[in-house]
Amino acid sequence: MSDRLFAVYEVPGPAAEAEKTARAIAYEETVEVPLEFPLPARIREEVVGRVGALTPVSGGKFRVEIDFPAALAGGRIGTLLNLTFGNASIWPGVRLVDIVFPDSFLASFPGPNFGVAGLRELLGVQGRPLLATALKPMGSSDEEFAAAAAAFARGGGDIVKDDQNLVDASFAAFETRVSRIAEAVAATGDKCLYFPHLAGPQEELEDRLRVVLGAGLKGVLICPAIVGLDTMRSLASKRKAVFMAHPAYSGSLYAERSHGIEHSLYLGTLMRLAGADITVFPNAGGRFGFTREECRAIATRSRAPLGSLAASWPAPGGGMSLDNTGSMTEDFGQDSIWLVGGRLLMHPGGPEAGAQAFRAKMPV
Amino acid sequence: MSDRLFAVYEVPGPAAEAEKTARAIAYEETVEVPLEFPLPARIREEVVGRVGALTPVSGGKFRVEIDFPAALAGGRIGTLLNLTFGNASIWPGVRLVDIVFPDSFLASFPGPNFGVAGLRELLGVQGRPLLATALKPMGSSDEEFAAAAAAFARGGGDIVKDDQNLVDASFAAFETRVSRIAEAVAATGDKCLYFPHLAGPQEELEDRLRVVLGAGLKGVLICPAIVGLDTMRSLASKRKAVFMAHPAYSGSLYAERSHGIEHSLYLGTLMRLAGADITVFPNAGGRFGFTREECRAIATRSRAPLGSLAASWPAPGGGMSLDNTGSMTEDFGQDSIWLVGGRLLMHPGGPEAGAQAFRAKMPV
Repeated sequence: MSDRLFAVYEVPGPAAEAEKTARAIAYEETVEVPLEFPLPARIREEVVGRVGALTPVSGGKFRVEIDFPAALAGGRIGTLLNLTFGNASIWPGVRLVDIVFPDSFLASFPGPNFGVAGLRELLGVQGRPLLATALKPMGSSDEEFAAAAAAFARGGGDIVKDDQNLVDASFAAFETRVSRIAEAVAATGDKCLYFPHLAGPQEELEDRLRVVLGAGLKGVLICPAIVGLDTMRSLASKRKAVFMAHPAYSGSLYAERSHGIEHSLYLGTLMRLAGADITVFPNAGGRFGFTREECRAIATRSRAPLGSLAASWPAPGGGMSLDNTGSMTEDFGQDSIWLVGGRLLMHPGGPEAGAQAFRAKMPV
Repeated sequence: MSDRLFAVYEVPGPAAEAEKTARAIAYEETVEVPLEFPLPARIREEVVGRVGALTPVSGGKFRVEIDFPAALAGGRIGTLLNLTFGNASIWPGVRLVDIVFPDSFLASFPGPNFGVAGLRELLGVQGRPLLATALKPMGSSDEEFAAAAAAFARGGGDIVKDDQNLVDASFAAFETRVSRIAEAVAATGDKCLYFPHLAGPQEELEDRLRVVLGAGLKGVLICPAIVGLDTMRSLASKRKAVFMAHPAYSGSLYAERSHGIEHSLYLGTLMRLAGADITVFPNAGGRFGFTREECRAIATRSRAPLGSLAASWPAPGGGMSLDNTGSMTEDFGQDSIWLVGGRLLMHPGGPEAGAQAFRAKMPV
């Protein structure tokens, strides 16, 4: 069985309908022919997905496991997505909730370059969560961003990242802005990492990453749903940088629970498989309607055993204030990153005092 | 106004709630700070999106236009997706239904390399739809695929593409399979194009495209939602190939009408902007629940005026039989591609007779 990959779906009932949908997925994602197509026995037995038992779950839906020869996923992320959720993504009411990978598949993926342990070592921080912020609002000058980043570093912040909305007019403008902010953070003497947003034309991403690392920086923010999950994997395999994955543009996959891909599978497991050292997601209680259970599940999957892949950092963000840090500790524990944007930057004493205030709330 | 980009959303009502959501999107997609953040007047006026009038639409929802400085989309697809549907994608109930681009934005995009006119010229076919099929089922041998492709060509087929599920074990296996099928099609002497599926590790895509063109082929099948829309755009800018875009893995964006991106905006406009010469989508009446209106809208947007971009070919596929070709003609007209897979391949007389039968149903 070790050479088979198990994809778990939730599909609408009743049972007979669910069974029909499951069989259709098993066909659609492999041979993609009508059920009455004269398939050779070998292909029917060795290629078509196998439908397992149906289990009723809430909402009149059924959970069903379909297993495929792992070779059909080709040890590649794109092929995996095509196999488990290519045409199935277009089927109304189908949700991919889990994938169980054989070790043979996972062995093709180096996973996060740094992960939990590596990033702790890089920062020299043990025994507490990390504190991160975002440079915003867009429209600020390079100097304003540089000053905010430096203040955050002085206040004890660990990671300052570009807001994913920041746009540089050109490669040169990106280079100038990044080096200015990098210098300001370095000048504080504090061990704070600055992660610029790696975006722009696809053919420039590698060069931009080179610029970032050339400025002495250790990592980047990236939006895998936009550039492609395998693009992040490819960049991470070429350069030993920290990749902080932002969920922009991926929400359609999980925001409606009636279809798509389960939050924790996409934001936890798949991001990690694609090399995310850090996975950013909207925290419960914020403005995006994630539940505490969904957020905890993302954190669990980002750190649970997965072949020999390093654990990723869960980075819940959005709507965090000094009043709800207790639930952060309870939900995510030490190996998590508190991503605090607006509330930290608008602290009456500025980003330095803001960072100090959030650091003071951390468990030690 | 020409330097502004208009994004049109449908959001849940009642009106007061819709207004609140629209203002939140305008903030979220630009400055991404709490509403009470002390924004400088310049940023508030020049950067934050502007919310237009609300119009009630069906289902208790409201349609609202939010306009942004076009510079924030940076003349790039990734930046455009981030601006119009980055964090907004995570918001339950928000659907992006239209984008009105200023010419200044469109001018950055060459669009399809061939488009409707160019592909007609390449094939020497005027005055009728094109007939396409897919090589399947996976698990067949290279020889079986080659024989089916050649038979389809002899029967008068115009385009034979790989099924998007086909997986080659290695670069070498891809090279062997592609050249074998290419030779078989060329040997017929018929003017039929073969488009291999361009997939695999991100860092190999360019080399694989080189192999395809080196084998004398003119284009590829590609899954932009998997490799990234801007990856297709980048590849198309480097090589004058035909790009046939397949919707695998993109379904979560549009399959549920309650959120995501409108079918025709994604499969019509955005695919074309990203350089798709052909956009494949599931036809109405097939197994994916698209309505005739949705399919017609995709076709309309793929061919409507859009800056100076060439028109793309709509390629409805899925569930087509010899009995429903009349609706194809009615819905999509001459400038469309009939993509017929299983039903053509399983014709009692084989793919050659299958191609002849479908060609005979075409309006002339």
